Amino acid sequence: MKDLIGSAGTVGGLLLRFFQFTFAFISFCVMVTVPGFSSVTAFCYLVAAMVFQCMWSLAIGLLDGYALLTGRRLQNSLLVSLFVVGDWVTSTMTFAAACSAAGITVLIDNDLSECGPNHCSRFEAAVAMAFLGWITISLSFFFSFWVLASR
Amino acid sequence: MKDLIGSAGTVGGLLLRFFQFTFAFISFCVMVTVPGFSSVTAFCYLVAAMVFQCMWSLAIGLLDGYALLTGRRLQNSLLVSLFVVGDWVTSTMTFAAACSAAGITVLIDNDLSECGPNHCSRFEAAVAMAFLGWITISLSFFFSFWVLASR
Repeated sequence: MKDLIGSAGTVGGLLLRFFQFTFAFISFCVMVTVPGFSSVTAFCYLVAAMVFQCMWSLAIGLLDGYALLTGRRLQNSLLVSLFVVGDWVTSTMTFAAACSAAGITVLIDNDLSECGPNHCSRFEAAVAMAFLGWITISLSFFFSFWVLASR
Repeated sequence: MKDLIGSAGTVGGLLLRFFQFTFAFISFCVMVTVPGFSSVTAFCYLVAAMVFQCMWSLAIGLLDGYALLTGRRLQNSLLVSLFVVGDWVTSTMTFAAACSAAGITVLIDNDLSECGPNHCSRFEAAVAMAFLGWITISLSFFFSFWVLASR
């Protein structure tokens, strides 16, 4: 298998995991500080998806760090398949959560114009961070999938 | 390049395009028959995304049919790259539209319990069809990406 910038066990891969974790963590923190966010299912789902992304990115980030420190290569078929499936599931969950929360934010902001009593700017910030998290985890997915397909 | 079941220019590929078009067309028809759907941005976006998916799937489906009838192979790098990018853009748009519409449907149905004056069952049907459309176009994307990566 080729070693690709950004694939598992490289400095690029570790950086991508770091950004994924950071964006997901900020999104989580912003959303849980909004009072009453839990009355909307989509916002609860966003929080759950961000927790899941934090855990996944942290776990694989630690594995990347270990591989870099010990000089091991994380390129066997089984491991790369695990990264592909895990990244796909996580990125799909994150994207679904970001889109549904974005739909509701646009509904409150544009369609109903009820930003006054709500916290539109915080919802928007949480959604934006979730989208950034999705972009970085999609990159990880593409690199892993490319490594798997081109072996 | 390997010829993969479901990739462009195969019977499997043509069938996938047919299902994509059908699901997107049903979703579009169900949504536009709901009076006042256009007052919600996410539902307008769903309609736009379904129109886009219909056009894309029809165009590539016709190309697949032509390739099958004339016995040509649609496997050169440039063409497969075009399929990969097009399928990715279309599937992302469809998924985003389905998720944001699903978020609003759940908000109306579960969180606000206002299904009475609204058309929850039709919203749900349109969203379900959009998700089915997304699954079939994702399959097309994976096959094209695999063909591109394994050349």
